[in-house]
Amino acid sequence: MPYINVKITDEGVTNEQKQAIIKGCTQLMVDVLNKNPATTFVVIDEVNTDNWGIGFDQVTELRRQGLTSSAE
Amino acid sequence: MPYINVKITDEGVTNEQKQAIIKGCTQLMVDVLNKNPATTFVVIDEVNTDNWGIGFDQVTELRRQGLTSSAE
Amino acid sequence: MPYINVKITDEGVTNEQKQAIIKGCTQLMVDVLNKNPATTFVVIDEVNTDNWGIGFDQVTELRRQGLTSSAE
Amino acid sequence: MPYINVKITDEGVTNEQKQAIIKGCTQLMVDVLNKNPATTFVVIDEVNTDNWGIGFDQVTELRRQGLTSSAE
Amino acid sequence: MPYINVKITDEGVTNEQKQAIIKGCTQLMVDVLNKNPATTFVVIDEVNTDNWGIGFDQVTELRRQGLTSSAE
Amino acid sequence: MPYINVKITDEGVTNEQKQAIIKGCTQLMVDVLNKNPATTFVVIDEVNTDNWGIGFDQVTELRRQGLTSSAE
Repeated sequence: MPYINVKITDEGVTNEQKQAIIKGCTQLMVDVLNKNPATTFVVIDEVNTDNWGIGFDQVTELRRQGLTSSAE
Repeated sequence: MPYINVKITDEGVTNEQKQAIIKGCTQLMVDVLNKNPATTFVVIDEVNTDNWGIGFDQVTELRRQGLTSSAE
Repeated sequence: MPYINVKITDEGVTNEQKQAIIKGCTQLMVDVLNKNPATTFVVIDEVNTDNWGIGFDQVTELRRQGLTSSAE
Repeated sequence: MPYINVKITDEGVTNEQKQAIIKGCTQLMVDVLNKNPATTFVVIDEVNTDNWGIGFDQVTELRRQGLTSSAE
Repeated sequence: MPYINVKITDEGVTNEQKQAIIKGCTQLMVDVLNKNPATTFVVIDEVNTDNWGIGFDQVTELRRQGLTSSAE
Repeated sequence: MPYINVKITDEGVTNEQKQAIIKGCTQLMVDVLNKNPATTFVVIDEVNTDNWGIGFDQVTELRRQGLTSSAE
């Protein structure tokens, strides 16, 4: 009965990507821990880049400076 | 001083339902643990059904297939 | 398919109290949102009083000063 | 490599305030624990006042009654 | 810069399993979202079975009744 | 009424450091958002280095390789 919470920035995550994250995390619980997928939850939180900081700066600012790619 | 975080899908939760969740969780802390309601926090997160997975699938897809009722 | 996380201080919470918290939170989801208990998770985190702060102070210190009852 | 999650009500938090929260939390990890800011994450969650309860009531209701200032 | 929190019951998770969870979640972020692994965090919380409830009951009790396998 | 959750590795954090984290986070909420400290919670989670992954590896392994200082 795992619960997995995935926090990522809200930079155009597609529905296909969300499905892949859900399937991948669930499969990992089955493969590694033999968990039952029927009671495995995956919850994705998309966080605005203004609200995520790393190294003193908002991700929004890091993107503008080109210090990190949009993928990071 | 409990902190309770309730994560549910964002399927038309009404304001009355939110009030009932807050009152119910707080009363539970008073009844079971004799906690002070003035320092009991309840935070409700409403999660998009695309962002919640169970058994490999998005809740959005489970709803479409009728495998789970909207209440689940 | 709610997920409820209850954070409380680790001040001698009994097994009966844990059962009551789990039952109470689950029943609340059934009563208020008509959720399926089979996919309702309740996870209790017991936090050391040294690691919980309120109003600038550790709960450990508040207890010592008698500013809050052990129940709070 | 700290991860800091700040949950606050969504009452007009400005971008400057978000920057100050990110910088302040990161600096605290550097000053107190000598952590590397490059691997210090700060994530701010802005929660609707309908979804935050304290003392049995929604913050929305507390604001209307003037029992708490908007800053609280 | 994803942050992934994996909550599982504390039923003898080995170090190899923890490594596999960390590697698998990180690889998923690289494969699906092209994220930088250097800023991908995975945090595993092992929760006592007394503190995890599902369907009104503690996992401890479900295990005793044999209603769920230890793997679930 | 902010709630701040600080997740750090469990590498000998002293009680004085915990007090400094609690005081610093609370003061930040007062200074930046004019919040009431009496309803500001800070909860510190100390995570075993086996359970924290970054860049595919457990922090335990990164420490052994000397790739990161114990402070990071």
